[in-house]
Order: sequence, then structure tokens, then C-alpha cells
Amino acid sequence: MDAHLTLAPPFETETWFNAEAPIRLEDLRGRVVLVTVFQMLCPGCVAESLPQARRVHAAFAKADVAVLGLHSVFEHHAAQGPVSLEAFLHENRIGFPVGVDRPAEDGDALPMTMQRYGFKGTPTTLLIDRAGRLRLNTFGHVPDLVLGAHIATLIGEGKWAAANQSEEDGPPVCAA
Amino acid sequence: MDAHLTLAPPFETETWFNAEAPIRLEDLRGRVVLVTVFQMLCPGCVAESLPQARRVHAAFAKADVAVLGLHSVFEHHAAQGPVSLEAFLHENRIGFPVGVDRPAEDGDALPMTMQRYGFKGTPTTLLIDRAGRLRLNTFGHVPDLVLGAHIATLIGEGKWAAANQSEEDGPPVCAA
Amino acid sequence: MDAHLTLAPPFETETWFNAEAPIRLEDLRGRVVLVTVFQMLCPGCVAESLPQARRVHAAFAKADVAVLGLHSVFEHHAAQGPVSLEAFLHENRIGFPVGVDRPAEDGDALPMTMQRYGFKGTPTTLLIDRAGRLRLNTFGHVPDLVLGAHIATLIGEGKWAAANQSEEDGPPVCAA
Amino acid sequence: MDAHLTLAPPFETETWFNAEAPIRLEDLRGRVVLVTVFQMLCPGCVAESLPQARRVHAAFAKADVAVLGLHSVFEHHAAQGPVSLEAFLHENRIGFPVGVDRPAEDGDALPMTMQRYGFKGTPTTLLIDRAGRLRLNTFGHVPDLVLGAHIATLIGEGKWAAANQSEEDGPPVCAA
Repeated sequence: MDAHLTLAPPFETETWFNAEAPIRLEDLRGRVVLVTVFQMLCPGCVAESLPQARRVHAAFAKADVAVLGLHSVFEHHAAQGPVSLEAFLHENRIGFPVGVDRPAEDGDALPMTMQRYGFKGTPTTLLIDRAGRLRLNTFGHVPDLVLGAHIATLIGEGKWAAANQSEEDGPPVCAA
Repeated sequence: MDAHLTLAPPFETETWFNAEAPIRLEDLRGRVVLVTVFQMLCPGCVAESLPQARRVHAAFAKADVAVLGLHSVFEHHAAQGPVSLEAFLHENRIGFPVGVDRPAEDGDALPMTMQRYGFKGTPTTLLIDRAGRLRLNTFGHVPDLVLGAHIATLIGEGKWAAANQSEEDGPPVCAA
Repeated sequence: MDAHLTLAPPFETETWFNAEAPIRLEDLRGRVVLVTVFQMLCPGCVAESLPQARRVHAAFAKADVAVLGLHSVFEHHAAQGPVSLEAFLHENRIGFPVGVDRPAEDGDALPMTMQRYGFKGTPTTLLIDRAGRLRLNTFGHVPDLVLGAHIATLIGEGKWAAANQSEEDGPPVCAA
Repeated sequence: MDAHLTLAPPFETETWFNAEAPIRLEDLRGRVVLVTVFQMLCPGCVAESLPQARRVHAAFAKADVAVLGLHSVFEHHAAQGPVSLEAFLHENRIGFPVGVDRPAEDGDALPMTMQRYGFKGTPTTLLIDRAGRLRLNTFGHVPDLVLGAHIATLIGEGKWAAANQSEEDGPPVCAA
């Protein structure tokens, strides 16, 4: 672990599905966060990364791992609006929260969170550690074996921290 | 072959993609026609029946087999409109003609061709023989081995007819 | 169909599994015959061609299609003997007859049927028509869609023959 | 981690492939060890657990994770002898060391290591931690996501130990 790692920047979203209120990354501190960045018309997202996110959601304890989707539309904007996305999530049985990346105000095709994080396309996989720091930002498919290992490593870091720090130390590795 | 088989009823469509003009079944007489009836948000269609239609399109001679898609939307109407469908076809590399089943005028959720043929849902697979008669109308997945056999059987019927009938006999088995 | 096609040469075998007596191709006249040529230690045979042969065995009427395996060992001879093969067939639930290609008497690594037919390796797929003629001899994987079409074409040829020939004509297309 | 966990009992083997000398578990202390227990004629082993072991072998650093196969034959003994196994390993491109579980001297069908560990069948997956303790002994398929997480957890324990113990403490968690 590197104390110089930076916090994952906040998401800019305009809507959330499967959530009662907008989700902020800081609300998830203490848990590892998997974020699957997708477009509903991206075949690789439908075939691989969203089913993988569902497997992660099912395999790990909710207290350890939160799973989010982020719908970052950079093409076919009219075809992938909220009405279409809602039906898509229903048909594909996506039960975890999904935020819609906010369109750029200046008319740029790339939405705001995509610009901020520098996503190269979809699918993109993000991992954020218990301290809120961005630890993985990968374009393309991540094999299950490797993703499982990454997640468990981040889960383990927190346990290490919890076991070896006294209360007054504060969260040991969160310093950005 | 059964001379009492009926002609496949005409399709009621409102738009066609990947076609310069609306396609009528009678224009395809002489060829076997595979029709994949789908909805763009139906996971089984995306994962199985549309890739299968692409394989059929690639495997058989165009002079023997025509492949069509029919977008029969009976749920999530607002999410599966023409703008969304066009992007979907592009992203999923569907190169064969796709017609949009015409919505019922009386507000019924089921579109007109779906009602006429009695489709039970999507995916549905239709096979129409060289003489224009409906020979298969199956809801759910048809294995490649079985579909390949059905198609070849229908291809062969026409060759048999061609080889064994004189001109004046007219098409031997087309009588509805 | 081409009357000049030659009969499939006889198999040279030393043992049969899942059969009460040695099977001769001439005993199968009137049926289409699929032969999967394999080695039990060939990964592509285990993963693809033998499961495909099982699917063919299940999908078509026994009166139309016979399925055979032919174990043509050209490497690792000591590792793929009859005792090993019998256990392999049991564990992989191969229920159709499997013949063991007879080793060459002159010490050649290639067994006799393999030499006679010119198999390039395993898996190889053979199709023999109802009249006993060799119609397909392909090294490597044949997609289900294509294999289903080939089989149905050969099934249909026989029906054509049956429908269009009188008894005294004899088998119409068997002439080698 | 629980200091009361017991050391993985030694393997009883009669032969090793892909190794210059017999491998003893104590030689692997300091590394996490994945052991895939298999039979060469077990279809689930060929289709799933051995390819998974190859993926683990490729995905993790050799300094962190050792991968072993253990051929525990409890049926079809004559069909799965060393000559057959050697050819099998070659054809399936298994590059990691594989030990052959020693047959029971009293004629029991179950080999000695299988009896000692209580394997219920094949495939079985073992994970041994850096301190040599048995942490996983599972019959049947383990999904990649879960196996990757288990392995990374065990890798991380050792790093935790290394980071938090002074030299004179000795190996911190090895006490059985």
C-alpha cells in the first residue's frame, strides 16, 4: 500500500437506478468498491462485464464489497437514455445500484465522470479500496481469477489495518 | 412435404433496417427464409438467437437461404424504439435486413405480426420454405445442429422439385 | 449426387466397444453414417468432436443416422490401449459403437484405416451416405450448423431416391 | 489466521512428472500452494480443474504461488497408469509438477494421500498457506472468482506477517 495514492474522484451522475438516493463514494468508505463502467449497447459489457459484476455481488459479503454500475454513454446517446436503461437493467436482472454518468455541459460526447477518470471506453473496471482510493482502472475484460485476487487483496488490507492500528491512529492508510 | 401446408402470412412492418425497401415474403420465393423474431432487450436473443442468425447468414449460400430479423416488441415499448434498435444493430453487427413489427392500432401490447403468427415470446424462430410456406415456428432456442438440419432439408426439397418436375407442372408442392 | 462417387473403403479394426459384434459399413446401408475419428488423449476430440457425436446420436432418428467412433491411434500407443479406452468411454458416457483402428503390421505408426483413408490427424469427421459412399472426410472441427446441414442433406437424398425409384431399379445411386 | 490450524500432512507419492526430484510440501514453505487433485479420465478435471490450475500457474508470481497436480487414482487403475498419465500431461500441456498418489499397500482402491486427506473424489482443490497449513480442501468445482480471492487472501497473510514481525520472532504463524 502506498499512502500517496489519491482518493477516487467523485462521480458526476444525473440519475441512479436500484438506489433510494444518489450514492456518493464517501458513503462507501470501509468497503471495497467494484465499479463496472458500461454502456447498455456495448456487447462486451452485456456478455462479460455485467455478468461478472453480478458474480462479484453474489460472491462477497456486502460488508466487505459494494458493487456499482456506472452508465457512461459516449455514443448512441439517443438510444441509451434512462428509459431504455431502466428496461435493460430489469431484463438483465441487474440488482446493484447503477448511476448514469452526467453528460458534459459543453456538448462533448464524453460524459463528465468519463472525462474525469480518463476512461478509454467500455467496459472499464474500477476498484476502490476501503479508504476510498482508486486502485484499478482497466479498460477491457479482467479475468475472474485476477479480479477475485484484486478484490481479496483490498479486503485483506483493511483487515490488516484494523488489526494493527489503535483507535487513535485513525485510519492508517487513508491519507491522500 | 404436405401440399396442404399454408403460405406464411405476410409480415406487417413499419420500418426496415439494412434494406433499401420493405421486404415482402413473396419477394423471397425460391429461397428458404430464416426469420429470427427478437427484442433488442431480450437477453436470450442477444446471447443466442441473433448470433445464430449471423452464423446461418454466413454458412449458407445467399441463393439458397435468406435471413431476416423481425423486431416484435411486446414490452418496454418506449425503450426499444427505432433509434435504439438502429444503434443496437450497429453495435451487434447485424448485417441482414431487420423489420419492425407494426404496433397494434387498438393499443394492444402485442404487435400485429406477432398476433397474426401467434408468437409466444422472443426469441422465436421461423422457417419458410422455397414455396413460401411456414414450416417452423418455435419459441425458445433451437440448437445449431437441429436448425442446420431443418434448413438443409428445406433447401433439398426445392432441389428435388427442380430435378423431378417439368416446366409445365408448375411448382409441384406450392399449392396452399 | 454423383453416381461416380466411390464407396467408403472398409474399416480395419481389431476391437469394438458398445457393440455385440464387429460393425461393417455395409451393414449400415440405408442409413447415413457419422464417424468421429478420435484419440482418447486428443484434447480437441474430448472437448468438441465426441460431445458433438453424442449430440448427433441424440438428435437424429436411429433409422436415419448411425453414429460410430473410430479410435485411430497414431501417437502415444502405449497410453491409449484398449483398457484405457474402455475406461475413457465409460467416463465420457459414449454410448455408440467405437472401433479400434488396427495397427499397421509393418510397424508404421499410422493404423491401417487411417492410412487407407488418408486421415490427417484427429479429430476427423466422416460422413457416409445411405448408399455407402464417402461424402465428407474433414480434419478439424466442423460447426454444428454445418454438420447438421450435411447430415440432413444426406438423409434427404435417400428419401428422394425412395420416392422416385421403382423396386427393380435397385438402389439408384449406389453405383461406384 | 488461526495458529491452531494444522500443517498439511505430507503427500505419499510414487512418481513425479515435470519435476527433477520428488516434491515435498515443506520445500514450498513461504509460498501459497494450489494442489489440483485429479484423475486423467475424470471429465470434470479435464474440462475445468486442470485448465483452471494452468490459469493460476500463469496469473500469479512463482515466488508467491506454487501449483501442483496430484493424480489420485481410485478407479480404472489399469487405464490410468504412469505411461498413460505422461502422454496425457503432454497432450494437455500441463507444465507444473504432478505427483502420483501412492496406491494403498493393502489393496484398498483409494490411494494413500487420498485416504490421509479424506478426498471425496476428483476434482478436489487444496490450498496450503505460506506456513504449510491446509486452508482449503474442496471436492468439486471452485469458481475462478472465489479461487482467486482465496489465493490472494493467503498471499496477503504472508505479507502481513512479514511486515509485522521482527526476525527473532521466527515465522509468526507457523506454529501448528
